[in-house]
Amino acid sequence: MSEQERGVSVLYQNEENLWTPDEFTERLKSVGRSFYHDKHPFHVAMHEGKLSREQIRGWVANRYYYQKSVPIKDAAILSNLPSRELRRQWIGRIIDHDGMHGGDGGIEAWLKLGEAVGLSREEVEQEVRVVPGVRFAVDAYVNFARTKPWIEAVASSLTELFSPDLISKRMKVLERLYPWIDKSGFDYFQNRLTQAPRDSDTALKLVIAYCQTPAKQRRAVAALRFKCDVLWAQLDAIEKAFPSKT
Amino acid sequence: MSEQERGVSVLYQNEENLWTPDEFTERLKSVGRSFYHDKHPFHVAMHEGKLSREQIRGWVANRYYYQKSVPIKDAAILSNLPSRELRRQWIGRIIDHDGMHGGDGGIEAWLKLGEAVGLSREEVEQEVRVVPGVRFAVDAYVNFARTKPWIEAVASSLTELFSPDLISKRMKVLERLYPWIDKSGFDYFQNRLTQAPRDSDTALKLVIAYCQTPAKQRRAVAALRFKCDVLWAQLDAIEKAFPSKT
Repeated sequence: MSEQERGVSVLYQNEENLWTPDEFTERLKSVGRSFYHDKHPFHVAMHEGKLSREQIRGWVANRYYYQKSVPIKDAAILSNLPSRELRRQWIGRIIDHDGMHGGDGGIEAWLKLGEAVGLSREEVEQEVRVVPGVRFAVDAYVNFARTKPWIEAVASSLTELFSPDLISKRMKVLERLYPWIDKSGFDYFQNRLTQAPRDSDTALKLVIAYCQTPAKQRRAVAALRFKCDVLWAQLDAIEKAFPSKT
Repeated sequence: MSEQERGVSVLYQNEENLWTPDEFTERLKSVGRSFYHDKHPFHVAMHEGKLSREQIRGWVANRYYYQKSVPIKDAAILSNLPSRELRRQWIGRIIDHDGMHGGDGGIEAWLKLGEAVGLSREEVEQEVRVVPGVRFAVDAYVNFARTKPWIEAVASSLTELFSPDLISKRMKVLERLYPWIDKSGFDYFQNRLTQAPRDSDTALKLVIAYCQTPAKQRRAVAALRFKCDVLWAQLDAIEKAFPSKT
């Protein structure tokens, strides 16, 4: 999809009515259908088995920067949530990523994925392969969570509506088409298959409950579109830095 | 102590050397000896049994605004911490205040204290008695945590070095001199007697470990002084809004 096609937003259709919960959910899902990064050429190539070891390593090493920023983003949202009831619903996300002890948590699992694709823990943690475009995109996401109304930050997390499909496909693909990757590195994906639906279910309920004006509904859709752009821009930067040899 | 005396800071003594951990700890503790709110006239009057029911209620109702802001402040710090190891050390504070289920957590315990002094849960939660000076002071604290370097925000939490003494005295005083208060409301204080030393121990170790230049040490001392001012200003505002009848 070209940048121009991606720029033809589903958001602005001169409608000013309040969507029903079903219509609203459908609008959110349609953002995913159009703009989620499963359709990015780099992901398409990954799923066709066309990426080199260096490209897979570049992706894992760069995506680490996103992973390590997720709990920072979630703590920013936590700090903006207006009640302890909402914080109680959100705080588990931070624990999912950070863990509480030893090797627990998603960041640790991502480091194991790094080792499984042949990257040392140190080079991943030192972020030597992380390219500026990935940093800028991820930092924009953290900044969005810090500074926007909390419900928009929650809406931006709704890419998790779309991730289980992508992740379950990816696990099969990596196992079949990239047999050189040590399968012990797949724990991160396995865990997300149960965490992501639970998290997106919570977030979707909040977004539907708290976006009770047409303007708020549209800002939620825009926040999700923004998040799709954050993910897409990371793959653009990774693709540029780790091009195919052909 | 007059404002002027309080203004004679221990911070600025034209010293530019790095303090040893012991010297540094002593500087931090000396801030507490001079500026912690145990010496505020309102607390002194409380501990002499001189406060009216209305004054106790005013204090509990206003202090609720501080309690409810503490996890917001801690989530802001969490979001600024540079590693998951540090976040693992900090996240428990949020759970201590928010709880994870039902009636757990410090905010809930504070609401029970409100009921024990004759305030309904609703009037405390609706913040009808909270005065502007308390809001400004507490909001300044949250803003400090959001915007200052994380180690200064951590240093600002070190008033917990001084709180167990004050709280254990307060529990005895409230029980003896204010027998009309339902003792079932004292859970908050009881819990803090074990939480505060653990938290201040963690925070003090971090401050000593991460403040390795004279300038950083002095900023940590200044942060703690700032926090003492936050607590002191709350009591000033409460004292003004709920004066003695004499």
